[in-house]
Amino acid sequence: MLHAVIPAGGSGTRLWPLSRADHPKFLLSLTGSATSLLQGTVGRLSPLVPPDRTYVVTGGAHAEAVAAQLPDLPSENIFAEPSPRDSCAAIGLATAVIARRDPEAVVGSFAADHLVADPDRFTAAVRTAAAGAADGWLMTVGMKPTRPETGFGYVQFGEPVGSGEILRVRRFKEKPDYELAAEFVTSGEYLWNASVFVWRAEVFLAELARQQPDLHAGLTRIADAWDTDERSAVLAEVWPGLKKIAVDYAVMEDAAERGRVATVPGDFGWTDVGDFRNLGDLLPADDSGNVVVPAAAPAGTGGPTGPVASTPPASGVEPVFVDSRGVVAVPAGGRLVTVLGMKDVIVVDTPDALLVCARDRAQDVKHLVDQLRSADRTDHL
Amino acid sequence: MLHAVIPAGGSGTRLWPLSRADHPKFLLSLTGSATSLLQGTVGRLSPLVPPDRTYVVTGGAHAEAVAAQLPDLPSENIFAEPSPRDSCAAIGLATAVIARRDPEAVVGSFAADHLVADPDRFTAAVRTAAAGAADGWLMTVGMKPTRPETGFGYVQFGEPVGSGEILRVRRFKEKPDYELAAEFVTSGEYLWNASVFVWRAEVFLAELARQQPDLHAGLTRIADAWDTDERSAVLAEVWPGLKKIAVDYAVMEDAAERGRVATVPGDFGWTDVGDFRNLGDLLPADDSGNVVVPAAAPAGTGGPTGPVASTPPASGVEPVFVDSRGVVAVPAGGRLVTVLGMKDVIVVDTPDALLVCARDRAQDVKHLVDQLRSADRTDHL
Repeated sequence: MLHAVIPAGGSGTRLWPLSRADHPKFLLSLTGSATSLLQGTVGRLSPLVPPDRTYVVTGGAHAEAVAAQLPDLPSENIFAEPSPRDSCAAIGLATAVIARRDPEAVVGSFAADHLVADPDRFTAAVRTAAAGAADGWLMTVGMKPTRPETGFGYVQFGEPVGSGEILRVRRFKEKPDYELAAEFVTSGEYLWNASVFVWRAEVFLAELARQQPDLHAGLTRIADAWDTDERSAVLAEVWPGLKKIAVDYAVMEDAAERGRVATVPGDFGWTDVGDFRNLGDLLPADDSGNVVVPAAAPAGTGGPTGPVASTPPASGVEPVFVDSRGVVAVPAGGRLVTVLGMKDVIVVDTPDALLVCARDRAQDVKHLVDQLRSADRTDHL
Repeated sequence: MLHAVIPAGGSGTRLWPLSRADHPKFLLSLTGSATSLLQGTVGRLSPLVPPDRTYVVTGGAHAEAVAAQLPDLPSENIFAEPSPRDSCAAIGLATAVIARRDPEAVVGSFAADHLVADPDRFTAAVRTAAAGAADGWLMTVGMKPTRPETGFGYVQFGEPVGSGEILRVRRFKEKPDYELAAEFVTSGEYLWNASVFVWRAEVFLAELARQQPDLHAGLTRIADAWDTDERSAVLAEVWPGLKKIAVDYAVMEDAAERGRVATVPGDFGWTDVGDFRNLGDLLPADDSGNVVVPAAAPAGTGGPTGPVASTPPASGVEPVFVDSRGVVAVPAGGRLVTVLGMKDVIVVDTPDALLVCARDRAQDVKHLVDQLRSADRTDHL
């Protein structure tokens, strides 16, 4: 029986000022869809996993908004983290709790904020991955890389195993530097890891115990207490001391070295909407290459975010481009946005903050956010 | 006795979206001054002309806001135009009315939206011009041109007359094309007309009668009725039919041909704040050449504008520039403005509209406004 875990952490600082601490990326609709990225993720999994076997692990501040966006999910399936401890703790906790409820469980982990163009192919790839997981592999789903992206993980695939749709993984390398990423892409031997993992709960937990014994011990203590009165107390005691590490580094790289990882090559139009440049690349442009991102206006800052993403885009005022090319405009402030004589610029308008950014500097929006934080100007973060 | 006329028409479309139909440029403070451009103009004239001899001719929609900004001016000195008829009708009407009240009057006309760095030198130049006017000249004040600006008038100066501070004008050319403007600047024989005119009322009215007999007749009818019960009726009947023409074309060009114009060369740091580029050039820049325009936030659109310019700048949120050079930021929307990796760009943020514009395209903001008007998108104009 497949269970789905969706770690929904991180605020998506490269999408600031649209994405904020109190309405992070996964709660937003970025493409004019009526659903948020998180709602889209759950919807995409629905042919594979019913709501009662779907889990979201998110920050305490977002648990309420997540519940509001996912009314079909049992509330006990939304796990609130006391503080961010990166993906290994989040996925590990859910896997450990699920293992107690269903010792034979196969668990898939799916990023909360990715886009998929072809859900049927996605479903098929995950089914194949689940079959590989049942056979004992730590499964990933691999996408053909199109550029030397340094923000992703890469898997080097080897010979087919089992039915032939599954390939052994020789090497797993998370976030290579640019040179190495370029080498990987040129070699033709590597796939991007689309941040999908599927494994038998007990296989993953055994790997975790081997590679990260302290983390495993802590998560085991919490999972043992989860369905008891002790949950809060144990969580408060143990969680803050857990190692803050991504599952890719914590488990996958070394497991691949030991031949325990395999991959299903997928082709379902996968996108990690990391920044405004690739958001712009994703959406249809006009004849001058200008793109309007039909982003839902975030709710007012400060308060908790309701199911914002299920409301239609709030702007209603069409931007005006004059003698401009390659503009990515995000009119999420309800204001008239006008652009004159500009080329390759990103303009993000929100009710309380505005970003004007060179399109090739979209990645550096996170540095701007860091700079605001360092200057203690957190009002707009 | 010197009287001052300040034609305050035009909304300053090149300063959109800061300047709007309902809070035009002359009602705004653009440089962090506590006073609006109009208030600054009246203040600058105060050593020369008391409030009871100072007149403002403005659109009916702005008469109330003008009165609120100029509480010392007698309300009967604010002339409300039923519709815009350009500067010859505005200045001609005030001159004709003043002539009835004081047949010997010397009248100076001063633009409502210019800046002067050295008010004492300005005062001295206007005094000299008034002396020339008393001698029967149609006087202008000339500024040394620094670039082939096509939006100004040019006077070709000749030999000194009278005291020697006044030069005969051989030619008056309003708004030459670029080639001609460049020739003028290179020749060293031309000065910019700083939109200051000083003349005896009867001398001007005689020239108007000669060159624009219909306009003169219409203005005479209105002026005859001005201080009677008939004012509204005659204004409503005659005003709409008046020729729409600038005084420069209507009177000054031909008067100069006939040797009736003279000029006082002035040097008082005159600026016509025409667009955001020259507004940016005017204000102090940081080490990276970035300028923050401390513009007062315009009042909400739609309603009449109170004395907005006497309130301090409303933004309070300091813009953030990262790896950016030559940015002109106008944070008049109360929002955080951030600029990343940009060069020579203008960012104007207001409560309901945003402009992002290449700095060398600042002049073309008026085309953008025209385009909005053509598309019937007048909500933000």
